[in-house]
Amino acid sequence: MSQFLPTPSVVIDTAVMESNIASMAETIRKTGVRLRPHAKTHKMPWIALRQIEAGAVGITVAKVSEAEVMAAHGVPDIFIAYPLVTPDKIARALELASRIRLIVGVDSREGALRLAEAATSAGRTLEVRLEIDTGLRRTGVLYEEALELGRFIGSLSGLQLTGIYTFRGALMNGKATLDLQAAGEEEGRLMAELAQRLRDAGLAIDDVSVGSTPTAAYAATVPGVTEVRPGTYVFQDRMQARLGVCALTDCAGAVRVTVVSRPTADLVVVDGGSKTFATDVQPNTDPLQLRGFGHVIELPDAVLERLSEEHGMLRLGPEAQASTLAVGDVLHIIPNHICSTVNLHNQVYFLRNGKYEAETVLGRGKLE
Amino acid sequence: MSQFLPTPSVVIDTAVMESNIASMAETIRKTGVRLRPHAKTHKMPWIALRQIEAGAVGITVAKVSEAEVMAAHGVPDIFIAYPLVTPDKIARALELASRIRLIVGVDSREGALRLAEAATSAGRTLEVRLEIDTGLRRTGVLYEEALELGRFIGSLSGLQLTGIYTFRGALMNGKATLDLQAAGEEEGRLMAELAQRLRDAGLAIDDVSVGSTPTAAYAATVPGVTEVRPGTYVFQDRMQARLGVCALTDCAGAVRVTVVSRPTADLVVVDGGSKTFATDVQPNTDPLQLRGFGHVIELPDAVLERLSEEHGMLRLGPEAQASTLAVGDVLHIIPNHICSTVNLHNQVYFLRNGKYEAETVLGRGKLE
Repeated sequence: MSQFLPTPSVVIDTAVMESNIASMAETIRKTGVRLRPHAKTHKMPWIALRQIEAGAVGITVAKVSEAEVMAAHGVPDIFIAYPLVTPDKIARALELASRIRLIVGVDSREGALRLAEAATSAGRTLEVRLEIDTGLRRTGVLYEEALELGRFIGSLSGLQLTGIYTFRGALMNGKATLDLQAAGEEEGRLMAELAQRLRDAGLAIDDVSVGSTPTAAYAATVPGVTEVRPGTYVFQDRMQARLGVCALTDCAGAVRVTVVSRPTADLVVVDGGSKTFATDVQPNTDPLQLRGFGHVIELPDAVLERLSEEHGMLRLGPEAQASTLAVGDVLHIIPNHICSTVNLHNQVYFLRNGKYEAETVLGRGKLE
Repeated sequence: MSQFLPTPSVVIDTAVMESNIASMAETIRKTGVRLRPHAKTHKMPWIALRQIEAGAVGITVAKVSEAEVMAAHGVPDIFIAYPLVTPDKIARALELASRIRLIVGVDSREGALRLAEAATSAGRTLEVRLEIDTGLRRTGVLYEEALELGRFIGSLSGLQLTGIYTFRGALMNGKATLDLQAAGEEEGRLMAELAQRLRDAGLAIDDVSVGSTPTAAYAATVPGVTEVRPGTYVFQDRMQARLGVCALTDCAGAVRVTVVSRPTADLVVVDGGSKTFATDVQPNTDPLQLRGFGHVIELPDAVLERLSEEHGMLRLGPEAQASTLAVGDVLHIIPNHICSTVNLHNQVYFLRNGKYEAETVLGRGKLE
């Protein structure tokens, strides 16, 4: 590949991405469950549309601003899996709901009241799903309080409660785990049981939405689960490979960097630091124990050990030290976490028919 | 302040920023040394121009794309304190050098040859400074090899070697330290001595450029130092406050967030996660031992303990638990590292005369 590309930059092998899209779609199709990928990984409407073409029913996002970008480029069915609580965001969601199928997350009485009041004022009914905390301790009503909150939401005019959802990642008994099958099955079971309890109380719960890239395939096999929302699988990354979800060769994305300095035999500095590689998945933390901030494809025994904003410090193992690696050489590094890494880049380069083509990350940096 | 602002967003108190700009300018002016702030913190040309108005000789950046943005908006004197080694970046630097005063970093033979060849081909002379590693182990020629490399660069046509520079941060004997005076003085002394050795070898070293926000004031007092390059001081942040450089009240910037969930008495979730708060300065690491990812101004005993991409999990202490904090409330959090946090935001809101005004972060996400 002698085509000039600026560095540092994210490059994506489109064939690998397409294979990941097809493979997840096929795995989930076999279970009879619906697939609603989280778009946080790619943040690009054209990829969301590819996922839908491959069989997804729609997509998931976290922010109303992300939903707006996706809708503006033709995505017809979006779930904002996040509690919207401010009047501006709720107004924007209501506007969007007049144009596409939109579902919004809710996890509190106060949040439900705000949504209901705004929807009623606008003379509309908003489709909502109740978020359940199944152990991650972030948003989501406590599992044991879900029935009561579900009943309350069901009593509000302006809201149509059609489902419940959770995000748990790879978690068992409140701790990160590598036993993805057990984790996914437990997650599915917890949610299916809760849905039944809500139905027994007279609530029309159609959707039981669970699952992330590590657990989606397992959670989807649990009777009563109706939808899974994996995100990272579209590109995969080093964290997923370490979890055993995929091989490193299934990672479609890498950061292309240039060696700018080699002060000593064991130290190489590349032109990407913490502005280029996300630092939210840190090295040496349980249970992954990732060595460094990425996997250097050309030099597997090099460790991306330290980052400052514009510098990546590679500590070279014996093999890499013996290499002819020099200033100006190009390396490709699979990042620990591709989703937050893509968010750092205004554009991403896609390899298609032997040539890289730039695509703008239209949904990047959407915080509202 | 009842003005509507979207959240999450970075807000800057302009009066505090102006005070920080004036204070550093005055501190450095008294030493007789030149001030060349690093623009990485704000990434906004209008602030660079404010720093120059207040007495700075020019600015520092890390990337040629950053220099282009700054030059396009009127900054006349820029130091790219980074080794430029690829033909595209060198060509862009040469073009820029025809329009403004531009200085470029160099730290290797190979890098020097590439710069010299391109400059000679273009019939130009490029002003360069030699980067020295004074212990941080990132870019920079090893201290003991600097004389030899300096001589080599001095022998090349197309390059004019006018100075040396280093970046060390708060470091002593290769380890992070809180003794900023000793660290800054040692940094200055090492560089002043080296400059003299290079001059003794016949090289015309005018500029001895050192210092960061924690060490600039101390390094500037060392005879032989001619320039300091602090960056963070313009806004300050929690890391600098913890280092003792400033008080928390000197921090001009905070992240404004909204409470989206309060599932239990001790847990609050806000609408900013790792896409909103930089994670490159981690909690509980030496020597700072910062508790969490930021300081919650309204609730000092709350700890921003965990982040996922769009969620910030605040663990509340007894005081915060007793508060009436509820869904929809707004909080302001001083981030651990303001520079990399600003890089996550397309715009930043400046408080001026009691009103917030949005400014685009024109130099954000410039990686090339």
